[in-house]
Amino acid sequence: MMYVVLVYDMEAERTQRMLKLCRRYLTHVQNSVLEGHITEGDLSKLRNSIEDLLITGESVIIYELSSETLVDRTVYGEDPAEDSRFL
Amino acid sequence: MMYVVLVYDMEAERTQRMLKLCRRYLTHVQNSVLEGHITEGDLSKLRNSIEDLLITGESVIIYELSSETLVDRTVYGEDPAEDSRFL
Repeated sequence: MMYVVLVYDMEAERTQRMLKLCRRYLTHVQNSVLEGHITEGDLSKLRNSIEDLLITGESVIIYELSSETLVDRTVYGEDPAEDSRFL
Repeated sequence: MMYVVLVYDMEAERTQRMLKLCRRYLTHVQNSVLEGHITEGDLSKLRNSIEDLLITGESVIIYELSSETLVDRTVYGEDPAEDSRFL
C-alpha cells in the first residue's frame, strides 16, 4: 500500500469525468486534488484510465510516497476534507 | 532545506494574488499547484503570508517532505512544468 497525492488540470467541462474516475480510488480533498492510500494494482489501473481519458492540453501529476508518514500535511483556511462537497 | 508541494483553491478573481505570492518561493507546475525546495525560514514566511491572504471558503494545502527523494512524481499528459505558462 502506498500513499498518493493526485492533481489534475482539465478542460473545464471535462473535470467531472476525471474526478469521477479518481474518486473510485482516492479522497477528493480540494478543488482538483485527491489523496489516499492505494495498492500497486489499483494505481496501475488508475494510471491506464487516466492516460485513456486525457486529451491535449490536459495533465495529471501523481506524487507517490511509500508511506503517509513521510509527508507533513498542513491545511490553511477551510479544511476542504471536512467540507461535505469533498467527501 | 525541505521539499514542498502546495495546492490552492481560491475565489477565481483572487488566484493571481496567491500565485504571485507563492511564486516568490516555489515553481508553478500546474494550474493551482506549486512545488520546490524551500528553507524552514522561507516556509514560515510563506505560511504567514498565506494566512494573511486567505478569506473564508478558500484553502491551501502544503505537503512537506524532508527530501525530494521521498516522492516519485509522474506527469500524465502535457508536462505543465515544460509549458511556458508555468515557468
